[in-house]
Amino acid sequence: MNRRNFVRTSAALTASTLAFEAIVNPANADIATTAGPYFIGPTEGYSPQIGTLVSMLNYNRMTVLNAVGGMTMDQLDFLFDKKANSIGALLMHLGATNAFYHVNTFEKRELNEPETKLWGSAMELGDKGRSEIKGHELKYYVDLITEVRKDADPAENKDDAWLLAVDPDPNWSRKDMPLNCYWKWFHVCEHESNHRGQISWLKSRLPGAKDSKE
Amino acid sequence: MNRRNFVRTSAALTASTLAFEAIVNPANADIATTAGPYFIGPTEGYSPQIGTLVSMLNYNRMTVLNAVGGMTMDQLDFLFDKKANSIGALLMHLGATNAFYHVNTFEKRELNEPETKLWGSAMELGDKGRSEIKGHELKYYVDLITEVRKDADPAENKDDAWLLAVDPDPNWSRKDMPLNCYWKWFHVCEHESNHRGQISWLKSRLPGAKDSKE
Repeated sequence: MNRRNFVRTSAALTASTLAFEAIVNPANADIATTAGPYFIGPTEGYSPQIGTLVSMLNYNRMTVLNAVGGMTMDQLDFLFDKKANSIGALLMHLGATNAFYHVNTFEKRELNEPETKLWGSAMELGDKGRSEIKGHELKYYVDLITEVRKDADPAENKDDAWLLAVDPDPNWSRKDMPLNCYWKWFHVCEHESNHRGQISWLKSRLPGAKDSKE
Repeated sequence: MNRRNFVRTSAALTASTLAFEAIVNPANADIATTAGPYFIGPTEGYSPQIGTLVSMLNYNRMTVLNAVGGMTMDQLDFLFDKKANSIGALLMHLGATNAFYHVNTFEKRELNEPETKLWGSAMELGDKGRSEIKGHELKYYVDLITEVRKDADPAENKDDAWLLAVDPDPNWSRKDMPLNCYWKWFHVCEHESNHRGQISWLKSRLPGAKDSKE
């Protein structure tokens, strides 16, 4: 990748991004308008570290939505091989992870019964995901992952001390290996990149897909 | 993923991590010892936002090294299909991206001739990557990506103002869409997650691999 390639990729991304902006930033349309997706850092209305995290979450979510933009139900349901997850299931998996860490960090609890009913198969993936997650249009997945992200807007009554706090639960923090709230949300964020990598890989191998370098 | 699964995964990760710690944090061994990979946030010796970024870069790099730990040359060279990149090439691609953004942000230049000779095929991937990147043991890749990361230690005479600064070059920043230095380094970071997702996917399909949910 040289600068010219970067700019080309970047321009393509931007062109298909604008329509998604309201979706990506349901609660933060004003921020997206003023700073935009390529500004990572403190964001108006948030404490410095939370604002930085929000800009990262928004950027990564935009790239996921760009990757799946325009996909049909058949494409979202496509199973590459017997081990593979569908792209639809991977999208749901992002929502499930978001939901899990939302209730963990905002409400100090695990997923309740209705939440587990909605997200359980997506959390597990594998056979359960393959049999239970299919037959939906893109909007179904985008609406669900957008809604759960909106619920977890970390601006609400939270500050950097909350974000940096170490979880005292020994199931999370080992004695010599503290795990903090920022790790949990950074994981939600980088986990979207992880699965976007797989979505791109699968996308380039959908029936009829063009050549790709993924 | 419930909490039990998380802890199991986390414990497995940690067990295989300790040996890698010196590699992951060549310049920051003391920080790794005091805070550890599951603490994301300001880090001693760095400005607040740079320290947070460093903790993210270190965490993600650790997960990549864990994913490829113990791989043989044959596994690193394995090509899943005619479009696929080998895991070795993906590792080199992480180094190439690091190198590109290092010289861009620290030295305000593009890769020079010897750097392009080293990283060019890994930057491009595709046919060039498939034909040129092979026949190396894991140590070759790990040494290269560790060295280039060490070179780019953002602590050196840099502060948050540097990290947050918008690139005035119109090839990077559109008029209404500023792009800053933090975006570049966040991209280096989340890009490792993106390709780790692909590495995990490919790993579970190596000849003789066990079942996996990837």
